[in-house]
Amino acid sequence: MKYRAVRGMHDILPEESWKWQYLEEKIRTFAHRYGFREIRTPMLEYTEVFQRGVGEGTDIVEKEMYTFLDRGGRSLSLRPEGTAAVVRAYLEHNLGASGTPVKLYYIAPLFRYDRPQRGRYRQHHQFGAEILGTPDPAADAEVLSLPIRLMQDLGLREVEVHLNSVGDAACRPRYIAALREYFGRYLDELCPDCRRRYDVNPLRILDCKEERCHRLTREAPTIFPYLCQECRNHFEGVQEHLDWLGIRYTIDPFIVRGLDYYTRTAAEVYSGKLGAQNAMFGGGRYDGLASQLGGPPVPGVGFGMGIERLLLVLEEEGIALPREDGVDVFVATTGKTGHREAFQLLDQMRQAGLRADGDPSHRELRAQMKLANRLGARYAVILGEEELRLGMATVRNMASGDQERLPLEGLIEALRERIQKT
Amino acid sequence: MKYRAVRGMHDILPEESWKWQYLEEKIRTFAHRYGFREIRTPMLEYTEVFQRGVGEGTDIVEKEMYTFLDRGGRSLSLRPEGTAAVVRAYLEHNLGASGTPVKLYYIAPLFRYDRPQRGRYRQHHQFGAEILGTPDPAADAEVLSLPIRLMQDLGLREVEVHLNSVGDAACRPRYIAALREYFGRYLDELCPDCRRRYDVNPLRILDCKEERCHRLTREAPTIFPYLCQECRNHFEGVQEHLDWLGIRYTIDPFIVRGLDYYTRTAAEVYSGKLGAQNAMFGGGRYDGLASQLGGPPVPGVGFGMGIERLLLVLEEEGIALPREDGVDVFVATTGKTGHREAFQLLDQMRQAGLRADGDPSHRELRAQMKLANRLGARYAVILGEEELRLGMATVRNMASGDQERLPLEGLIEALRERIQKT
Repeated sequence: MKYRAVRGMHDILPEESWKWQYLEEKIRTFAHRYGFREIRTPMLEYTEVFQRGVGEGTDIVEKEMYTFLDRGGRSLSLRPEGTAAVVRAYLEHNLGASGTPVKLYYIAPLFRYDRPQRGRYRQHHQFGAEILGTPDPAADAEVLSLPIRLMQDLGLREVEVHLNSVGDAACRPRYIAALREYFGRYLDELCPDCRRRYDVNPLRILDCKEERCHRLTREAPTIFPYLCQECRNHFEGVQEHLDWLGIRYTIDPFIVRGLDYYTRTAAEVYSGKLGAQNAMFGGGRYDGLASQLGGPPVPGVGFGMGIERLLLVLEEEGIALPREDGVDVFVATTGKTGHREAFQLLDQMRQAGLRADGDPSHRELRAQMKLANRLGARYAVILGEEELRLGMATVRNMASGDQERLPLEGLIEALRERIQKT
Repeated sequence: MKYRAVRGMHDILPEESWKWQYLEEKIRTFAHRYGFREIRTPMLEYTEVFQRGVGEGTDIVEKEMYTFLDRGGRSLSLRPEGTAAVVRAYLEHNLGASGTPVKLYYIAPLFRYDRPQRGRYRQHHQFGAEILGTPDPAADAEVLSLPIRLMQDLGLREVEVHLNSVGDAACRPRYIAALREYFGRYLDELCPDCRRRYDVNPLRILDCKEERCHRLTREAPTIFPYLCQECRNHFEGVQEHLDWLGIRYTIDPFIVRGLDYYTRTAAEVYSGKLGAQNAMFGGGRYDGLASQLGGPPVPGVGFGMGIERLLLVLEEEGIALPREDGVDVFVATTGKTGHREAFQLLDQMRQAGLRADGDPSHRELRAQMKLANRLGARYAVILGEEELRLGMATVRNMASGDQERLPLEGLIEALRERIQKT
């Protein structure tokens, strides 16, 4: 019997992991430039955190969570999204105590028991950031600008921002009543999911992907005439700040985040030319979430961007990430001698900061050179019998094939110079 | 109701996360110097992987795993250790196809349903590395030298290596018979766990922490007279290679890794002066693991080091990690004007690579300076009304309090120079 990775989950192998390292380092650099600091919450939360923080009745919580009882009988769930746990941690540790806003980011695995398909994994990974403790529209624009600037920096030049407001507890109920009135006339034409949504949360009908629902939503009332003055001001403030940064956006009344605690800003951002658009990330304001989790009201706004999705889009757009995972030097021997010298030299090189490798089995030179090539070595240092007798080493430039003989004394410095030059 | 993190699991908050970032970057740098490349396996595996790869009958698998059925009825487990999943991935993707050895490392969360105590978490994190595909003792010494050099580089100078051989399938059965004969005489004096171990795997009695068992083990036969010639040669080879690197070790017959597929090398490494020793990591050879998982025989050797443990020991030894998580510049305004200029300047600074932050709510200057201090800003740029009219900004060195007025044009470059100088 041979074992495989869990269905719908994927191993990230060395041929891919360097891309993850590159992206994660870039993400960290960007997040730190924007004043975000990292938070890491556990993979698991008590299930109630998501039932309240994402919402009972949502597909995520009802159908897609990995939920189980621990040996003590408590219900735990692997986190299906990033925000609820961050807000839980903010409340638990009272992170706002020394002043607000508090700006947090995470790079984390998320879990959804979903039908596996291309680019959709049951364990996927997300970069997200949250600004907690300020209701100011400047924060909405700032938190959206981070991933947009990141995408641009990576070479994704065609970034399209879709922006909406979903109102707040003051004004949304009237809009929902209007939606119910409108969709009530077409109940028979809605898909079964949307007929359920009609009762639970008719906002969700607006982003249904079914053609029959989609057609109806085009004629549905938009929220804009229903927005209260505060929500209107906020929405204009977000737009104004995005204008200041020269970030273009489309007002799109069909972008909804259909949970009760979502408030005001809802955004989705796409990459690519029209007709081949890729949803890159979503974001929004959730001023109701902290109280939903049993805390005091804490305004918040954030986004979440899938890393698998980002990698896929970069590949589709032909953007290559810079690869630097080869070793600098391969240390080879020519037979039965030099094992000790090679092993010590490797250790010295590594302590001096070079990326160095060798063949623990000291196979014949041809096999060692094959290994050196596979490892992407830039130089090979060959410790032959004659060289060792003379206190020398043969240094081969693996790209050009050029060889030279250098004294062992000072060899590491000589190699470092050659490596830095190329 | 207020929610908390799952019992026994911990949030890593911004006041701690910079240490994790620092250690992880150092770990990656070291791993790459040694020619290891990263592998990331999912948090979950089919439970059989651990039943076979760690061993049914072990405490880990029987009592300490987070195991549950997915919605399709398959038994999944959160990984309790790192090696089994790496070997599973090696076999599944045939990673040895283009040549051996294959050197892999991981930095990953592990899960154990354990009694929570100081420094022991139900989700903890481990740095591990594996060399697969070579039986050569040079690999054992190399894979152990990586974390030892890392510890030394971090300032942990008192590193103590305990080394043993547990033999292999050829010679270990005779030793186990000898152990059974010895402990059979003292069955009544063993703890209940060890009475069970006596039947299942008497090797495990050797590392029992109970005083009564401990006393008996001191007189028990050691494996050394039972080792076959190959195991003896291998053990000497490992020692020879460690000698070559000047890494000192103690031969310790009580270091066992009590699973059937463990072979030959077993090591534990401690830090600190005698009497206040901290186990830092364990490692060993597991030439039987790949076939246990249903693959062809693939020799392997590796280690695993807990990151929480490493952080704890660094703290106990008074070793401070370099902290660099403050922002470079805080952009402040003095009232109702300058919001646009501040927001745009922040965006420009961030795109230019500075770490910059501001107050989205533009509170009064005193509150903004308090925020600047909290964020660890090195400079504050104040955009007052007069400054803006003149195309200038006031730049305050937050440490010295010195202020100067600089033109907005070229401000970012001027700040960058000041930051690089300090």
